[in-house]
Amino acid sequence: MTDRSTPTTRFDPDRLAGNFRRVRAVSEALASPLTPEDQGVQSMPDASPTKWHLAQTSWFFETFVLGLGDPGFRPWRAEFATLFNSYYQAVGPMHPRAQRGLISRPGVAEILRYRAWVDEQVLARLERGASIRQLELIELGLHHEQQHQELILTDIKHALAANPCWPRYREPEPCAEPSPAGPLCWVEDPGGLVELGRDLDHPESKFGFDNEGPRHRVWLEPFAIASRPATNHEYLAFMADQGYRRPELWLAEGWDLVRQQGWQAPSYWVSEPVPEQWQQFTLAGLVPVDLEAPVCHLSFYEADAFARWSGARLPSEAEWERTAIDLPVMGNLLPARAAELASASLQPRASLEPNDEASGLTQMFGDVWEWTASPYSAYPGYRPAAGAVGEYNGKFMCNQMVLRGGSCATPADHVRASYRNFFHPPSRWQFTGVRLARG
Amino acid sequence: MTDRSTPTTRFDPDRLAGNFRRVRAVSEALASPLTPEDQGVQSMPDASPTKWHLAQTSWFFETFVLGLGDPGFRPWRAEFATLFNSYYQAVGPMHPRAQRGLISRPGVAEILRYRAWVDEQVLARLERGASIRQLELIELGLHHEQQHQELILTDIKHALAANPCWPRYREPEPCAEPSPAGPLCWVEDPGGLVELGRDLDHPESKFGFDNEGPRHRVWLEPFAIASRPATNHEYLAFMADQGYRRPELWLAEGWDLVRQQGWQAPSYWVSEPVPEQWQQFTLAGLVPVDLEAPVCHLSFYEADAFARWSGARLPSEAEWERTAIDLPVMGNLLPARAAELASASLQPRASLEPNDEASGLTQMFGDVWEWTASPYSAYPGYRPAAGAVGEYNGKFMCNQMVLRGGSCATPADHVRASYRNFFHPPSRWQFTGVRLARG
Amino acid sequence: MTDRSTPTTRFDPDRLAGNFRRVRAVSEALASPLTPEDQGVQSMPDASPTKWHLAQTSWFFETFVLGLGDPGFRPWRAEFATLFNSYYQAVGPMHPRAQRGLISRPGVAEILRYRAWVDEQVLARLERGASIRQLELIELGLHHEQQHQELILTDIKHALAANPCWPRYREPEPCAEPSPAGPLCWVEDPGGLVELGRDLDHPESKFGFDNEGPRHRVWLEPFAIASRPATNHEYLAFMADQGYRRPELWLAEGWDLVRQQGWQAPSYWVSEPVPEQWQQFTLAGLVPVDLEAPVCHLSFYEADAFARWSGARLPSEAEWERTAIDLPVMGNLLPARAAELASASLQPRASLEPNDEASGLTQMFGDVWEWTASPYSAYPGYRPAAGAVGEYNGKFMCNQMVLRGGSCATPADHVRASYRNFFHPPSRWQFTGVRLARG
Amino acid sequence: MTDRSTPTTRFDPDRLAGNFRRVRAVSEALASPLTPEDQGVQSMPDASPTKWHLAQTSWFFETFVLGLGDPGFRPWRAEFATLFNSYYQAVGPMHPRAQRGLISRPGVAEILRYRAWVDEQVLARLERGASIRQLELIELGLHHEQQHQELILTDIKHALAANPCWPRYREPEPCAEPSPAGPLCWVEDPGGLVELGRDLDHPESKFGFDNEGPRHRVWLEPFAIASRPATNHEYLAFMADQGYRRPELWLAEGWDLVRQQGWQAPSYWVSEPVPEQWQQFTLAGLVPVDLEAPVCHLSFYEADAFARWSGARLPSEAEWERTAIDLPVMGNLLPARAAELASASLQPRASLEPNDEASGLTQMFGDVWEWTASPYSAYPGYRPAAGAVGEYNGKFMCNQMVLRGGSCATPADHVRASYRNFFHPPSRWQFTGVRLARG
Repeated sequence: MTDRSTPTTRFDPDRLAGNFRRVRAVSEALASPLTPEDQGVQSMPDASPTKWHLAQTSWFFETFVLGLGDPGFRPWRAEFATLFNSYYQAVGPMHPRAQRGLISRPGVAEILRYRAWVDEQVLARLERGASIRQLELIELGLHHEQQHQELILTDIKHALAANPCWPRYREPEPCAEPSPAGPLCWVEDPGGLVELGRDLDHPESKFGFDNEGPRHRVWLEPFAIASRPATNHEYLAFMADQGYRRPELWLAEGWDLVRQQGWQAPSYWVSEPVPEQWQQFTLAGLVPVDLEAPVCHLSFYEADAFARWSGARLPSEAEWERTAIDLPVMGNLLPARAAELASASLQPRASLEPNDEASGLTQMFGDVWEWTASPYSAYPGYRPAAGAVGEYNGKFMCNQMVLRGGSCATPADHVRASYRNFFHPPSRWQFTGVRLARG
Repeated sequence: MTDRSTPTTRFDPDRLAGNFRRVRAVSEALASPLTPEDQGVQSMPDASPTKWHLAQTSWFFETFVLGLGDPGFRPWRAEFATLFNSYYQAVGPMHPRAQRGLISRPGVAEILRYRAWVDEQVLARLERGASIRQLELIELGLHHEQQHQELILTDIKHALAANPCWPRYREPEPCAEPSPAGPLCWVEDPGGLVELGRDLDHPESKFGFDNEGPRHRVWLEPFAIASRPATNHEYLAFMADQGYRRPELWLAEGWDLVRQQGWQAPSYWVSEPVPEQWQQFTLAGLVPVDLEAPVCHLSFYEADAFARWSGARLPSEAEWERTAIDLPVMGNLLPARAAELASASLQPRASLEPNDEASGLTQMFGDVWEWTASPYSAYPGYRPAAGAVGEYNGKFMCNQMVLRGGSCATPADHVRASYRNFFHPPSRWQFTGVRLARG
Repeated sequence: MTDRSTPTTRFDPDRLAGNFRRVRAVSEALASPLTPEDQGVQSMPDASPTKWHLAQTSWFFETFVLGLGDPGFRPWRAEFATLFNSYYQAVGPMHPRAQRGLISRPGVAEILRYRAWVDEQVLARLERGASIRQLELIELGLHHEQQHQELILTDIKHALAANPCWPRYREPEPCAEPSPAGPLCWVEDPGGLVELGRDLDHPESKFGFDNEGPRHRVWLEPFAIASRPATNHEYLAFMADQGYRRPELWLAEGWDLVRQQGWQAPSYWVSEPVPEQWQQFTLAGLVPVDLEAPVCHLSFYEADAFARWSGARLPSEAEWERTAIDLPVMGNLLPARAAELASASLQPRASLEPNDEASGLTQMFGDVWEWTASPYSAYPGYRPAAGAVGEYNGKFMCNQMVLRGGSCATPADHVRASYRNFFHPPSRWQFTGVRLARG
Repeated sequence: MTDRSTPTTRFDPDRLAGNFRRVRAVSEALASPLTPEDQGVQSMPDASPTKWHLAQTSWFFETFVLGLGDPGFRPWRAEFATLFNSYYQAVGPMHPRAQRGLISRPGVAEILRYRAWVDEQVLARLERGASIRQLELIELGLHHEQQHQELILTDIKHALAANPCWPRYREPEPCAEPSPAGPLCWVEDPGGLVELGRDLDHPESKFGFDNEGPRHRVWLEPFAIASRPATNHEYLAFMADQGYRRPELWLAEGWDLVRQQGWQAPSYWVSEPVPEQWQQFTLAGLVPVDLEAPVCHLSFYEADAFARWSGARLPSEAEWERTAIDLPVMGNLLPARAAELASASLQPRASLEPNDEASGLTQMFGDVWEWTASPYSAYPGYRPAAGAVGEYNGKFMCNQMVLRGGSCATPADHVRASYRNFFHPPSRWQFTGVRLARG
């Protein structure tokens, strides 16, 4: 990250075309281990079928790039506007979100043809000269598609888990020796008035979502943050100490959920066939819980209760960003090229490799999204992006919590220190974990 | 069907093997126009995915026939017992009914292999000599499979209708001239003490479900029954007379549904894109409502309200059976052989061909199941069949209404005068219509 | 019942005025042990507040009698038409049923003033000469009010049971020696063609609801019916034999309820503070279960499962009526006069007193409503009463089961052999029990 | 209130006894216009019956003060611990919140006796010498009771509104000339590093809830805040401009609610009997909307959409507190003495009286709670109060938004600049409005 990209290179059509080919190929590679039947399943309203992700990301380019300022443009099929509009009220009516799994047609084969057609059109547009606005929207569309790549993995994990036969997305990795987790140390920060967020209007800035800016000042009190995420081993101690039965550890709405849902462990944990011997469902099927790996598939409520039980708390997003701001983005992330996907871990794992030698921090990026104590809201001076794509972020700024750092399912070139992910507090199907803070 | 079959021919293994091959082939032929994605969709808890029907009917033979008295028998895959048990509590745990659409694996290809394997095993059993109990259960399994054949059609119709693109199960028939409906005449019956139902224990009796018997006496007052089902034309008159807005025409629970669901027409009727010009969704896509055809996809409540508006009533099942008992089973039914399926109508249509010259009755069999005024309950002296298959009928004898006569989706050799179908009063996704009665 | 009343005496204004005063006084006497707060509670949509019953029964006279053919009539308060219309769609809009407990005003005091005003007006009308139609409607209104008297008791029982302090409607009776139950004998009937139901159009007939007629013929096979209702002792044997855990004993919808609701015993049974030692909540508070008394507060599903477990079945309503038709109406019923209410049992109890010496039948009337195997539907030739009061019965003829014989909360002069009560199969808050049948 | 109280005066037993008598009397005075039936109604799970508020606030003193360190203490009735525990998990089991309206006993009379008994005991304790902890808890209990005083008014308003007869809590005020609203001006603030929140551990500090502290630094960018709340007149312009039909103005979850609930105006607005002529339901019944008064009974979503439509935004709670910190607490609040309640407005109204001459700010306190853009969460260094009363605030810090400034139903000596109220974004039954901000 030493040389800052210039606007020229950022919007260089050739480079953009290369990125376009690379990112689009990853989506299809992620879907390729799945059968057409797999790709149609929607296991809950929050998740979507694989093929819907493949189509929706293409519809994004078709609608916002190809259709831009071209009254003669004819879409692949007009009905797709209804089927694959995710939430852009400004664009028109939408098929109900909870009923995406009922749409058997178009099938996977047609959707792949649709993708190929969109690819061809976009590349042709790049070749014959696109406007700056189109270049911007292509770049935005690629970042958008990378978000859906993560969802392809988390959503199919949820769908396969609904099957009592525990089917696999892919075969397990050959048994490598699992790493041990390092000791948990506290990294101190003196706080003070810090600058955070991104100056997105700066002509030399790289891509960022509108919610990452503007750059603004925040006063921080002194704090300490854990050198690594909490492990399954540590979380089992919380469970053994009756963590799921002690209301005083929980937010009121979390405690209600614990009782209603009968939560007793992180999501995807299974204590069958042998009771008391925990297994977890992964994209490679059912495997024993790895005690050294970061605990994962926690709701915000569980992360918060665990922190309280630990005598600590969750970091604020400002504390997290302050800590991460100068660290290199590296870790257990999803490879950014289709050819490298076979080496993806697709599951959090322990690591001793520091993000930064001095502080000893590890795993700030990758493995698990880290719940913060910060509700998702606008930075001072926030302005949504113009046009329909302005519905991308701002309208969700309510009742969600910010997560930071990316997970083992996040494309490696997608996440950064200023990146703000957000989910509702009860959500558990993302790769979500916890890093403690104090002070 | 003139000579009564003897037990010898009824359970002749060669004849049974022939029927087995024929019936099994129809199920696969019905699924063949559908993509793997189509075959996995479940659009409501009452409906099931096509491939689930294909598998469940095979599991029936595997469990009740192949496993019978053979402790060494090893099923295709043990997990299928959970996935494809529909409701046999005696057999073991079941995958939740409403989540059948989440099971992407086994896929269609594996289910077809499973079917082939079951077929092979059953035919081998027949060849090397099966017990009478096994022969009985094979026969039962074939009638069971024919019920699922009807459901394959009604369930996929419901699933395709959830898609705003109105996809087709098959291409429309070449435009034949639609028949006109005959005049509605009243066929009088003097009533009296009649014998109805089937004597299933008689050694010479043909197959019947346990709920069709025993034979018993019923006193009937004089009555009259309509010579044909009510037509779309007649039903439109009810609609035009504010039928859906007049509570006095409705049972209380029906009226509540009308308001909650906003019912304004039979199910699958669509008044778009041109308002006031009714189309209906069929297995061949969206077509204009055929005014002469029997009205279809009515709930019991609509049938009952229409009858009340007509100054008539629904027939009791005893009146219906008394009327049908000596009529030949013929009409717009589903062909019983795979090779003939192409000629199936798959939609009710007008017909002037009488079931019986003397009375002038038409369409007593086929086109639409006819709602009766009779709640589904046990005949005097009813005893459920022995074993787990005894859960087939008796345990549903509550809160459902009897329908008679079969529909355009009922296999032609499956229905008979004594046949009792049953659905909950709000159900609309079957091919259900109404024949009026008086007196 | 030896002398048949003539129309003259049936509609004698003086006699009607006497009945009017008597019946109206009972309602108020039933409410008198309750506080204003008690009288406002609605503990579920199926139940209503006491004061609502007091008002609704008055609104019935006001609307159907006082308003009849008198365009100048001004009701007490126009808003009451919305508040106290129970289900007469023909009359106008209704306050939502489930929200009756939210109406704090009018309060009890105003409702008692309203009752007094209606009483005065009706008696004045009788005195100065009412039309035959008005006399008929007054008679109907009194039978209607007696139905609400039973509901006042069952609804307040349900409401008080929602209070963890188990408050009492009244003090327990001084401890009389509880009667023993007689032995269970089977009373045989040869069946045949019988006449049942009421000829309501006959000029000499006494009052009956429209659903009790017309008189019609029914063919009955030979059957036997139990000499008394099943006891708590017998039901405990069903429970001890895992009755609530064996799906093969249950109708499918009943079994679903057992699991969803966690049913393990009849409603109002409590096994606290001492586990395994059953108490039951009564209108006199929590008392030990009386083993000899008829089992009570069963749903239809429980009655049906118990009968199946017993190797018996429920009687049809025709069998029940055939058995009861010549028996005197006597038993543990609600006294028909306010002055005698103090002697009411308000709880089923054992009795050796036969309804008929010859057969040895006991408790055909009173104690518990007896679930029959008959779905509630129209007799052949049924016609609803004319006008809005025709909504009284017919529109509920779906998804409900018939009960016969009255309970300890039914006014003694309200029930008769032809009387058809009806509730949904899951209902448990009425005094409902079971008498077995066979054959 | 000019001289700062010292710990000595803050916990002076005589002064506390005086406050105790005063505050307790207000609760009873607020209930006194209501009938016993009124006081029992619960119209939604979020609201509680009046008598429950009267009892719960007494149970608070009984449990936390009288029971403190006195093992021999015997409560009035042991069952009250279940009935009147609102949410203190540490204390024991609770009656389900949504079923408070089913508890007819204890009635109002007994609850008033219970209150008198608790009062006597607490005052006796104060007289014979209470520990510092008890004094603290008495003070906390009085602030707690004042919160319930506001809820008594908002909850009964909601309950009375469920009655189609629109009953009144009290008679309307004699028609005073309504004030005009002042012009909307923008009060500028340069921002910077400011200190906010309360230092609750300081020995000289006055009472504050644990969530108001600790004192901490916040960096504020320059901002401007409106001189007064938005008026009904201004909100009608938003409505007229299709505010409820334009998704681009709304947060996504707000827009879903608008459609599901059919919102077209603030809560309690009624456009009957004359369409298009808005009335609003108040504690004095139905009255025309006062165009000059602050708009009220908005959800957070409506406040936020209105702000976006206005080209402005909601203030953060830090901006609000910064603005209010030096202003005197005065405005249209609930009088703090029973004798003065008759003069309460109980409805927001326009006012020209500035909180501060220099800035021209009006109505910072009273009239309507002002929704802020800040999710309710912990200040840096927040620690919940010790013991069960620590469940008071912290466990609700999720999915709620902060409101500031108090309303016409907030006791005048209860609110202050640092006071943080919080409700879920959909809530509309509190007196909630909006003050705009910019920058």
